Amino acid sequence: MSQFFEHHVFFCCNKRAAPDASCENHGASELQAYAKDRIRELGLAGKGSIRINKAGCLGRCDDGPVLVVYPEGVWYTFVDREDIDEIITEHLQHGRVVERLKR
Amino acid sequence: MSQFFEHHVFFCCNKRAAPDASCENHGASELQAYAKDRIRELGLAGKGSIRINKAGCLGRCDDGPVLVVYPEGVWYTFVDREDIDEIITEHLQHGRVVERLKR
Repeated sequence: MSQFFEHHVFFCCNKRAAPDASCENHGASELQAYAKDRIRELGLAGKGSIRINKAGCLGRCDDGPVLVVYPEGVWYTFVDREDIDEIITEHLQHGRVVERLKR
Repeated sequence: MSQFFEHHVFFCCNKRAAPDASCENHGASELQAYAKDRIRELGLAGKGSIRINKAGCLGRCDDGPVLVVYPEGVWYTFVDREDIDEIITEHLQHGRVVERLKR
């Protein structure tokens, strides 16, 4: 079946009150916004291409911060913009899973 | 590739200020909460089974309110709890696409 988006990325942006850990406490929304901007700059945003979304708690707190790429269902953790850049270049642009960040 | 969730459902819960239409202005969050509760009641929540999530704007405003079911990438619109019940029973429990709600 053809997909509306070739890659649809969801960042967990759930925030819990301290001292509980949560993806948002690790900068998820800032890195989601960064990814969205980069995809737009690369001309890859939109139907038939890539969409970068925020989501509520994705239920994998122990592996967080996490994002998931559908339809392939590959999950990643990340620390900084360099990790996001690698996911964009390797996975989203070239279809190569980034094993070191996979969860 | 095996998927962490058999079905991962994202409701667009984006809200725009009136008079602009948005999924949230059509009760998306309330129906997302209803779906989440129903999946839990049916014992279908969690790893290897079903996850019901909120998401930001999914970029299909003209077809809204919308949800998407991954990994299959099937998009639905919905009006009320009866529509959500049909998506749960037909698609999520029995793998049959609900053609009348598909977008």
